[in-house]
Amino acid sequence: MQQEIILTGITTTGTPHIGNYVGAIRPAIAGSRNPAARTFYFLADYHALVKCHDPRVLRQSTLEVAAAWLALGLDTEASIFYRQTDIPEIPELTWILTCMTAKGLMNRAHAYKAATQENEAARSQDPDKGIGMGLYCYPILMAADILMFKANRVPVGRDQVQHLEMARDIAGRFNHLYGEHFVLPEAQVDDKTAVLQGLDGRKMSKSYNNTIPLFAPENRLRKLIMKITTTSQGPDEPKDAAACTLFQIYQAFATPSETEALRARYASGIAWSEMKQMLFEYLNEHLADARKRYGELIQDPAHIENVLREGARKARTFSVPFLKQIREAIGVQSIG
Amino acid sequence: MQQEIILTGITTTGTPHIGNYVGAIRPAIAGSRNPAARTFYFLADYHALVKCHDPRVLRQSTLEVAAAWLALGLDTEASIFYRQTDIPEIPELTWILTCMTAKGLMNRAHAYKAATQENEAARSQDPDKGIGMGLYCYPILMAADILMFKANRVPVGRDQVQHLEMARDIAGRFNHLYGEHFVLPEAQVDDKTAVLQGLDGRKMSKSYNNTIPLFAPENRLRKLIMKITTTSQGPDEPKDAAACTLFQIYQAFATPSETEALRARYASGIAWSEMKQMLFEYLNEHLADARKRYGELIQDPAHIENVLREGARKARTFSVPFLKQIREAIGVQSIG
Repeated sequence: MQQEIILTGITTTGTPHIGNYVGAIRPAIAGSRNPAARTFYFLADYHALVKCHDPRVLRQSTLEVAAAWLALGLDTEASIFYRQTDIPEIPELTWILTCMTAKGLMNRAHAYKAATQENEAARSQDPDKGIGMGLYCYPILMAADILMFKANRVPVGRDQVQHLEMARDIAGRFNHLYGEHFVLPEAQVDDKTAVLQGLDGRKMSKSYNNTIPLFAPENRLRKLIMKITTTSQGPDEPKDAAACTLFQIYQAFATPSETEALRARYASGIAWSEMKQMLFEYLNEHLADARKRYGELIQDPAHIENVLREGARKARTFSVPFLKQIREAIGVQSIG
Repeated sequence: MQQEIILTGITTTGTPHIGNYVGAIRPAIAGSRNPAARTFYFLADYHALVKCHDPRVLRQSTLEVAAAWLALGLDTEASIFYRQTDIPEIPELTWILTCMTAKGLMNRAHAYKAATQENEAARSQDPDKGIGMGLYCYPILMAADILMFKANRVPVGRDQVQHLEMARDIAGRFNHLYGEHFVLPEAQVDDKTAVLQGLDGRKMSKSYNNTIPLFAPENRLRKLIMKITTTSQGPDEPKDAAACTLFQIYQAFATPSETEALRARYASGIAWSEMKQMLFEYLNEHLADARKRYGELIQDPAHIENVLREGARKARTFSVPFLKQIREAIGVQSIG
């Protein structure tokens, strides 16, 4: 029985907020300590290049996101943590897979179709107006990311399930032509992951500008929590915990017994000012260590660079021999 | 004044015929001895993968085409002769350029449009039916081939001029975003290159099955030349040299004075049997050395492999530092 391989891609666009943390980062980091699996985590900076053409932003995002995952406790001994652009076998496999991919498959990709539909809605004569080849081809890059490390399982959001199906399709086509070289990966969608509300009660999201950054300094964290929308109920009125953003955020960090204790306070009446102060103190205490580590890491990029290089070294002990195998399978090999 | 850089891509599909030799290979090889330029020649095996999914054919084609160019006298000391798949910087640059390429540009590529038009002519509901992403994306790979080595000039057939324009377009977009890193290449189309007629008088082409393979054994060469279509004129009748395939092939190999002497023989009357025998002897003598070298090289693939590896080593003294420069330009670099 082979060890299961789980691969997680990390987008490198900006520092995470507490919604990202609770919904994706925390469960992913918990997975890095799973002794029953071999886990790969990579910073998807060649994906970021599809949209980001500012070199300073690209570089800074990689630094901040790497620092965040390390500060939050990613176990880089038990798992393999690397930067996509440190693995030259990935773009090479991308070209090989490009030669195995039907154009019709890419035409059906949701992200591409959404872009053409926007053009059609704007009555553009060209449905491909403003669309880049990076957007169009990136499911192939993603397939290479996954297939390179023979991942069995890839935790993704629901919007990424189609990309996993495409990776399976491309792998199946290759295996049909050249023999069973690639493992067909499965998407793992966790519908139970918490989705946090933001400051205004809508889903916490950068695009709504309603987030609480994970590493906001203490003063800023306090100010943001004080801004969270509540009802206009008076201090002594019983309150609905389930609908309350403050309660929900508390619950995402607290133990079940702490949560039950707070639920009782809501039922008997708690002043919003008291609740906000309590949530601030609770969050501040829970995030203080990680925030401190994050601050130290950001000041020590050489250390992060070393961690990433060591991760790339480990990742390439897989990717170098496997790409050699794939090259031999397609007939690209020494002729002498 | 910088030395001009000339880059020539060599398709690795099958052994060449004398039409390929006269029209493309001979002038390209003459260029390898041009002291005023730095010349790059590469076996385009990652292009071959677009169409060829048989590993034995892919490998054998690379061997045969490399042996042919070496047998015909490519100067691998004065020029840089390498295999595309030995340069991992090329697929990596391909992805970077993919992120800079408008999808609309690829939609306009002749080869892709021809494929969709075939589908439309066959009343297929899907214009992309049977079309692969390799065909669709290969102008980007070709741009990477060219831009990687800062080629100023690329000798191509008329059908490839559009790909050079695309490479210029992609390079220009990159330079606009990140500064002047890429050299804009020029297509060099030589309309004066000889186009040989084949056995049946049509253009010599594999698709017409009317070729004379460059390294056909002596017996086969004689048989093929005896099959060349002629008029039914008698031995003593004056003949039209200009329209005659035999004359044209002779001219492609002979000196001007030899050609004029033969033209006089045509005017005064020459028997087709005599002409065919003469052409056979002439060609056989001119090709004998190269044929012998080709036979020896095919028996010594280890030598060819060494030549290609040495070429790749030389090519990578350019591609490795230049890709590093390009990565830094886009923000993919050490963060520490």
